[in-house]
Amino acid sequence: MPAKALNQQLDVLCAGCEQVIDRAELAARLKQKSSLTIKIGFDPTAPDLHLGHLVQLNKLKQFQQFGHKVIFLVGDFTARIGDPSGKSQTRPSLTHEQVVANARTYAAQVYRVLDKHNTAIRYNSEWSDHLKPQELIKLMASYSVARLLERDDFATRYKQGDPIALHEFLYPLMQAYDSVALAADVELGGTDQTFNLLAGRKIQRDYGQPSQIVMTLPLLEGLDGTKKMSKSLNNYIAFCDPPDEMFGKLMSLSDTLMWRYWQLLGLGSADQLAAMHRQVAQGLNPRDLKLRLARQLTALLYDDAQAEDAQQAFIDRFSHRQLPKDIPVRRIKTNEEGHAPLPNALRAAGLTAGTSEAMRLIIAGAVRLDEQKITDKTMMLQKGSEHLVRVGKRRIARLILT
Amino acid sequence: MPAKALNQQLDVLCAGCEQVIDRAELAARLKQKSSLTIKIGFDPTAPDLHLGHLVQLNKLKQFQQFGHKVIFLVGDFTARIGDPSGKSQTRPSLTHEQVVANARTYAAQVYRVLDKHNTAIRYNSEWSDHLKPQELIKLMASYSVARLLERDDFATRYKQGDPIALHEFLYPLMQAYDSVALAADVELGGTDQTFNLLAGRKIQRDYGQPSQIVMTLPLLEGLDGTKKMSKSLNNYIAFCDPPDEMFGKLMSLSDTLMWRYWQLLGLGSADQLAAMHRQVAQGLNPRDLKLRLARQLTALLYDDAQAEDAQQAFIDRFSHRQLPKDIPVRRIKTNEEGHAPLPNALRAAGLTAGTSEAMRLIIAGAVRLDEQKITDKTMMLQKGSEHLVRVGKRRIARLILT
Repeated sequence: MPAKALNQQLDVLCAGCEQVIDRAELAARLKQKSSLTIKIGFDPTAPDLHLGHLVQLNKLKQFQQFGHKVIFLVGDFTARIGDPSGKSQTRPSLTHEQVVANARTYAAQVYRVLDKHNTAIRYNSEWSDHLKPQELIKLMASYSVARLLERDDFATRYKQGDPIALHEFLYPLMQAYDSVALAADVELGGTDQTFNLLAGRKIQRDYGQPSQIVMTLPLLEGLDGTKKMSKSLNNYIAFCDPPDEMFGKLMSLSDTLMWRYWQLLGLGSADQLAAMHRQVAQGLNPRDLKLRLARQLTALLYDDAQAEDAQQAFIDRFSHRQLPKDIPVRRIKTNEEGHAPLPNALRAAGLTAGTSEAMRLIIAGAVRLDEQKITDKTMMLQKGSEHLVRVGKRRIARLILT
Repeated sequence: MPAKALNQQLDVLCAGCEQVIDRAELAARLKQKSSLTIKIGFDPTAPDLHLGHLVQLNKLKQFQQFGHKVIFLVGDFTARIGDPSGKSQTRPSLTHEQVVANARTYAAQVYRVLDKHNTAIRYNSEWSDHLKPQELIKLMASYSVARLLERDDFATRYKQGDPIALHEFLYPLMQAYDSVALAADVELGGTDQTFNLLAGRKIQRDYGQPSQIVMTLPLLEGLDGTKKMSKSLNNYIAFCDPPDEMFGKLMSLSDTLMWRYWQLLGLGSADQLAAMHRQVAQGLNPRDLKLRLARQLTALLYDDAQAEDAQQAFIDRFSHRQLPKDIPVRRIKTNEEGHAPLPNALRAAGLTAGTSEAMRLIIAGAVRLDEQKITDKTMMLQKGSEHLVRVGKRRIARLILT
């Protein structure tokens, strides 16, 4: 590859990464092989993708555009074992059928972004099931207890006196061994995966392979604007959210968060982002950029036509609907975690007599948030957000979450 | 079993133990089964037995005399693996042939004390080789990292920042699993094995078996009188020492250590020991008791005739040999660990011009310690001991190690 093309490819691939360990090695690997194997892990207990995953998928797409091959590594070996100590609720034991079904669900979502023909899905049970005790012991000999206790979550639990069962120490090593089995050239992950990805480098070296290049990507904040987007925090936009809902959620982002999404979700070049900032400085309403963001993301995950429909529906609801003139404004205090359950917010705003009435009305379909019907009575409103709320036809308020 | 017989058996079995966990369980197990399975571990990297092992062998012999069955568990699985991290020199990797040869050497020594027909030798590779990854993970889930870090040696190393490779944490669990595989009723070990033996109790419980009763025995001090008898400290009396040498080494014990050996090596009842103490108080020379101890132990490991020969030879050397009248006395300072290498002691006593000459003379067979020829130039003299040393025919001194 000519030096100029190589440098251009490197610039694109490294752009937006939190860490690349390291760029020189990546350059050397690209010189050596025209098609690299990019590994990315997938936890089969959580098959639903959300925009947080898009940060990594976009990067993988770039790799594919340069002719590299992506492997989604399904951690079915450990998923089938679950937590033998029975203490963790986050590690349920899955059957082989459940794992395969989840992987299928996952693949269908992934292919909305990635090129199917350059994407493989592999299961680590292929090799992990057949590891002999001697091989596991050799693997364990690669790491010291002290080094494993340095991993953030282990360190915290150890300090707090929360038990860490010994087998939990084995899991990062086994996923590192997956890199050996796949002969991965690059492994991609969120910044919270750095320890595990680096373990892959070390284990590959111990097994006589060249170490994979590690690339970490920033974690996207969820709708609350502070915490990592995740299903368990209920602050996410799912790939499977219907276009209207996806569009509406994106339009509810704060301005700060909108810039973060533009930046992390790979929808514009650095130049384009700088131009947008200039436009806003010159008076452009950030709302217009939010519309553009919502439109582009919905188009990426659905298609242009559906994105346009969603946009039109959104504009119709907001622009054409007659709103009463003096809408009362209510400030609602969120809890310590920055959440307010919708029923509590409705009661606090005086829109319902109590939370049980609020829940009944939500379930009955009588509550609209930002002109969208809400039927999930567990919905959380986030600190810092503003919403137009209707209960039935008469009761209306603008909520400011503080 | 009648209550009286049961209590008598319990008294004998528990006598001399440092800890029994616990006596009530042992009583219940004896009521339930007429023949118990007694497990004891054997490290195949160190097949040479010494008197330190006799403490445990005597206890096993008592079990056998009550009709119980002893299993020597050969840790060949881990011995064949060695230390995959390559950091430990104390854990060399052995071939299957070496392990079997060592076990044979070991068995030959063990049968000098135990009843061959009630003794089995098993190898843990029988089951460990076939453990599936899932089974190893289940085993690892039984223990927390914090609990393993409580084991004395791990705690010390962790505190000092010395690396503990992860596989080292697996080994105590695997030896605990051996108790499951053997369905052990009792496991015996030195006090330094308490953590591992208790792990066996827990793992058996986790695997749905009744927990083994754990019995720990005190560690016998070596010839130096302070440290545990061990080959690496060169302070031991080996089973394979020739009768004369064994006898001579036993005669060199300090009086304090002699009492300890009487007590720990199971050569006399508590009543007999008390009687000996009374006799000494009434003027008996402890040397006579030392002769009796040396005689009994040599007879136990060889036979009466050989023991008598050894005794006669010892007496001849000391009583009948003509000694020059004024033997010079030399006080020799030992090092911080309470040792003095023989060549250095010879030089310090003025018996040789330097340590190299001393070494040459030792190798040449010209040096006698307590009337026995010494050809080991690495021999250590211990603090607190006294020796008559001859170099050639003329040079002689009495050394007092301080």
